Amino acid sequence: MTLYEIITKKKHNAELSTEEINWVVAGYTCGEIPDYQMSALLMAVCFNSLSDRETADLTMAMARSGDMLSPETGGFNADKHSTGGVGDKITLIAAPIAAACGIFVPKMSGRGLGHTGGTIDKLEAIPNFRTALPYDEFIGTVKKAGFAVASQTGTLVPADKKIYALRNATATVDSIPLICSSIMSKKLATGADGIVLDVKVGDGAFMKTAADAEKLASAMVRVGQLAGRKCSAVLTDMSKPLGMAVGNSLEVIEAIETLKGNVPEDSALREISLTLAAEMLVTAGKGDSEQCFAMAKKALSSGEALERLRQMIELQGGNSRVIEDYSLFGKARYSREVFASESGYLNGIACEETGLTALRLGAGRQTKESDIDPTAGIVFDKTVGDLVSNGERLAVLYSSAECDIDSIAADFVKVFDIGEEKKCGVKKNIIKIIKGY
Amino acid sequence: MTLYEIITKKKHNAELSTEEINWVVAGYTCGEIPDYQMSALLMAVCFNSLSDRETADLTMAMARSGDMLSPETGGFNADKHSTGGVGDKITLIAAPIAAACGIFVPKMSGRGLGHTGGTIDKLEAIPNFRTALPYDEFIGTVKKAGFAVASQTGTLVPADKKIYALRNATATVDSIPLICSSIMSKKLATGADGIVLDVKVGDGAFMKTAADAEKLASAMVRVGQLAGRKCSAVLTDMSKPLGMAVGNSLEVIEAIETLKGNVPEDSALREISLTLAAEMLVTAGKGDSEQCFAMAKKALSSGEALERLRQMIELQGGNSRVIEDYSLFGKARYSREVFASESGYLNGIACEETGLTALRLGAGRQTKESDIDPTAGIVFDKTVGDLVSNGERLAVLYSSAECDIDSIAADFVKVFDIGEEKKCGVKKNIIKIIKGY
Repeated sequence: MTLYEIITKKKHNAELSTEEINWVVAGYTCGEIPDYQMSALLMAVCFNSLSDRETADLTMAMARSGDMLSPETGGFNADKHSTGGVGDKITLIAAPIAAACGIFVPKMSGRGLGHTGGTIDKLEAIPNFRTALPYDEFIGTVKKAGFAVASQTGTLVPADKKIYALRNATATVDSIPLICSSIMSKKLATGADGIVLDVKVGDGAFMKTAADAEKLASAMVRVGQLAGRKCSAVLTDMSKPLGMAVGNSLEVIEAIETLKGNVPEDSALREISLTLAAEMLVTAGKGDSEQCFAMAKKALSSGEALERLRQMIELQGGNSRVIEDYSLFGKARYSREVFASESGYLNGIACEETGLTALRLGAGRQTKESDIDPTAGIVFDKTVGDLVSNGERLAVLYSSAECDIDSIAADFVKVFDIGEEKKCGVKKNIIKIIKGY
Repeated sequence: MTLYEIITKKKHNAELSTEEINWVVAGYTCGEIPDYQMSALLMAVCFNSLSDRETADLTMAMARSGDMLSPETGGFNADKHSTGGVGDKITLIAAPIAAACGIFVPKMSGRGLGHTGGTIDKLEAIPNFRTALPYDEFIGTVKKAGFAVASQTGTLVPADKKIYALRNATATVDSIPLICSSIMSKKLATGADGIVLDVKVGDGAFMKTAADAEKLASAMVRVGQLAGRKCSAVLTDMSKPLGMAVGNSLEVIEAIETLKGNVPEDSALREISLTLAAEMLVTAGKGDSEQCFAMAKKALSSGEALERLRQMIELQGGNSRVIEDYSLFGKARYSREVFASESGYLNGIACEETGLTALRLGAGRQTKESDIDPTAGIVFDKTVGDLVSNGERLAVLYSSAECDIDSIAADFVKVFDIGEEKKCGVKKNIIKIIKGY
């Protein structure tokens, strides 16, 4: 078996055997297969894709490349993953809700390489918060608070770590089987009993169409079931930024506000958070989707979920007084307001462009080594569907970096699509749920 | 401009600008662009191809990446290149023939393309033979022997050297614009006045169909003419291995046998060698194709061509006694005979599978860094069209490597297509000549 032959096979659209896939993953992880061969194979996969069987094999091989954990919390362990979007702080809301309903959420999370940081980067905006936890301490936190959020350890899915970095440098990221194997290998290795996937759809997401998102969601649910886990994938709207805040500390504040009950009942952020928490409970056998949604709602309104967040922050070394005093997050050195230049209905907020603006303000990483500015980002005053008047404030941009905030703010006006008539067909927040319980 | 953006463009089948192509070639040559990004781009090119304009731009950028030579031999300089096939030792026969007819063939050659080594690797099977010649010595050899074969120098088309090695290790060889740019950039940089291209067609070649071969041939002739050279492309049959030997030292021996007149008059190897030598003479204005073929035949039968080979070997430091004593090539440690398991006509020898077998035996490179086993390979006893009897020997396999030669030999039986009836329609050796004089 040579990688040359395997690349040739995939280039000619032949199916790779289980043995060949295991050999590639093991060889690449230990460094026997060089990057330049692996990237050629990955590009061939981008063009010719992988069958369901190959995708499952790849996922299993990657999962087994490092430790396979089984978190001994003494209860049902659920995990949640998002394919990534702009303003996505769902984990910070859904995980404490699920914990408050009696299941455990041991969440290992990656850092952000996109527009804003990942969940880990967001939490690190809290003074003294630690994400690099020894495994025992991680599990201890889960047992006490019901959930914990830690960065991935080096011995967990090393194959994914290497393959992901290579894909990220070679424009081989947008392949459904590769995305599926990257996500699911980590979920399988962290050992959750229930896996809930938030698959974002729209301009601000990886999957631009519902059809593509459904392909990815189905692939992931299938792989999860094959591995004996309870799975659920929720297709959610990412045609506009999620919630009113984009940026690390700004999003933690919005999550806290949501847990305090200070966001509108019908907001996308609230509905999607409750749905994902509910699906985690369904995988745990706590009831059907409707019953679990009601449980989640109760855990939110009772304040129990907020208490779980407070406990988790304290157990992970963070200053939990941030919950009452947002000034403890620190303040951006610069801010600029953005105003409407016409009156009408706000029919859209360009989502990817919002993310790129957050990146320019310093909220994300431009390269692997970049530092994140936790204070940088955007807070919207208006959301899609609102009526706005000429001169009314639409958003405020924040940054502590020496970026050209004036020209960024001037450009930002164009993300707002304001029209005389209200566009019908407002997108549903929850597009579809693919169940694999 | 980033390579990530350029990979993405080509992946989405957009046309790259001249500026982008120049930037990629310069950046990869100087090491600023890493192998793993370049191989992803090359694989995307394999899938989405390049336009005529992109191909010409790439060829020119590569040619200009190092020195542009003009060999001062005092005569007409012709060059010959093969797109590569199984058992292709034509250069070792055609170049001394052309030299014997009074033109110069300053041949710079590359290393292996996969199944077996390149001309350079084959010649290195001769004890003490040097292929890394200083340019003055190379030209001096050409002036004396009429031809010389040296490896590309570091300052000659460094872009191709790097790209070729990478393609060879990443299964990105079989792309018409990449093959065209690789071949023609070297031909343009080495400064030959006449360029003759042997474009192989069939199962054992990159070009499986005459239509594809003609596309490549036309692309190369077009680029050559644009650069002011006399060009000719000969489409030749590669539906079966060329000659009776596959493997480095084994092929040198067969070339010597051909120059000694010890192969049948009607053999494919002899006809194709003479045709290519003749085309070189045509580009030099020595006559038309028919006249030049007669000249070539005479140079072969007179023994003058063999003398040119002997001179060249000596001038390049090799032990020319190999011409009389083949044992000086050394002997493979292991050999296995393969016998017919039925009687009938040998209607075909699977060519690509023969090449892969040679690779497994050690005759080719599995990765950029691999060493070649000069003794490894295959010698056939029978050729297509022969009548064979059950139990008769068909071939002998040789290897000095610790490969599983027994199972390789057992598998090898399947390359022989033996049938009760002789299949009509034996392929022509010379399919077409595309002239650009």
